[in-house]
Amino acid sequence: MVNIKSEQIYQLEKNYRISLINSLIGYRSLNLLGTTSNDGISNLCIISSTFHLGANPPLIGLVIRPEREHNDTLRNIKATGQYTLNNILPEWYMQAHQTSASYPSGVSEFDSCGFHKQYVKDFKAPFVEESNVRIGLELREVIDLDINGTTIVIGEIVHIITEDTLIAEDGTIDHSKAKTITVAGLDTYFLPHPIGQLAYAKPGIEPHLKQNDTKANV
Amino acid sequence: MVNIKSEQIYQLEKNYRISLINSLIGYRSLNLLGTTSNDGISNLCIISSTFHLGANPPLIGLVIRPEREHNDTLRNIKATGQYTLNNILPEWYMQAHQTSASYPSGVSEFDSCGFHKQYVKDFKAPFVEESNVRIGLELREVIDLDINGTTIVIGEIVHIITEDTLIAEDGTIDHSKAKTITVAGLDTYFLPHPIGQLAYAKPGIEPHLKQNDTKANV
Repeated sequence: MVNIKSEQIYQLEKNYRISLINSLIGYRSLNLLGTTSNDGISNLCIISSTFHLGANPPLIGLVIRPEREHNDTLRNIKATGQYTLNNILPEWYMQAHQTSASYPSGVSEFDSCGFHKQYVKDFKAPFVEESNVRIGLELREVIDLDINGTTIVIGEIVHIITEDTLIAEDGTIDHSKAKTITVAGLDTYFLPHPIGQLAYAKPGIEPHLKQNDTKANV
Repeated sequence: MVNIKSEQIYQLEKNYRISLINSLIGYRSLNLLGTTSNDGISNLCIISSTFHLGANPPLIGLVIRPEREHNDTLRNIKATGQYTLNNILPEWYMQAHQTSASYPSGVSEFDSCGFHKQYVKDFKAPFVEESNVRIGLELREVIDLDINGTTIVIGEIVHIITEDTLIAEDGTIDHSKAKTITVAGLDTYFLPHPIGQLAYAKPGIEPHLKQNDTKANV
């Protein structure tokens, strides 16, 4: 058993600390974030800091690192007010990872990393054709954090583009069937397998599988 | 292919919409959030809205739903300034799910759901003894969101309590070895298996596995 305390964390070698801190909270939602500039130059980057903020209104938050010269994503979101989140599949996760490379401003990662743009009517931001769960969002709030210079972007879901066979009877997206992958830390990718779907928890009632779930693969 | 648009999302049956929106972004980091009141009454709840905010300073964000009478978590965090995040293992994920039940204020989910408290010197909030990746945090910022009444809580990591065998050479926590599980949506739990660890991405260089990684299980 090891207890790494605050002062020791600050003394860790930089890359070691980055890997450790990034991997602490476990698996993270993994998406390709698609945007476009007002000039029509598309941008695509892998993102693992999205979080669910609420279902009514349907809101998703995400964290964008401090603005840099070649960081077009935040600039595009602010300029157009629209962006997309697209799930990542095992067949092309390496190309998705490649979008994290520092391409110069104005170079589209769609082209550089081999992805196809999909557009829908009256929505500027490009979706990823290779994904099978695609979310279109409209910007609602930008929160700049003094504490470390990052920016929290909050958007409302205005498009959900997927296969109807991937939506279960209760509304849950079947990410197992979709083959969505996840990441822990900066660079280690995983394909999850279902353990079980549990019934709504109530005090005094033992936790149990949801009735329509016959899986219990622990 | 289906495109569910904004106005249709609002017309969906409530529980269906909640399941759909909660599951859209894919797998989420899954932890037990431990707190204590100033009177020493502990509280434990399952949380899947934590997000990585930065490694220097080491910061984690999380979302807490609108304050309710029996919601002790946010009150405890504000009162003591300290809280813990603890990973969830397959052997007891049902008990972890059970902490989401609406226990009355003052009832400890540690006792009700069968978890043991672990304390470290000079730190008030209880860790979960059953976990093998435990994070101690100190409150740095509380952001109340007008848009839906939720609260974003930002904390700095001051304790990392784990087995040293779970930390890989590069600093990454090996969640596969730890058997950390994840969730998609509200109630469907998953155990991920590694696909591969990729090298740092650079423009002009084909994406490839990190040299020390012999896995490529796609």
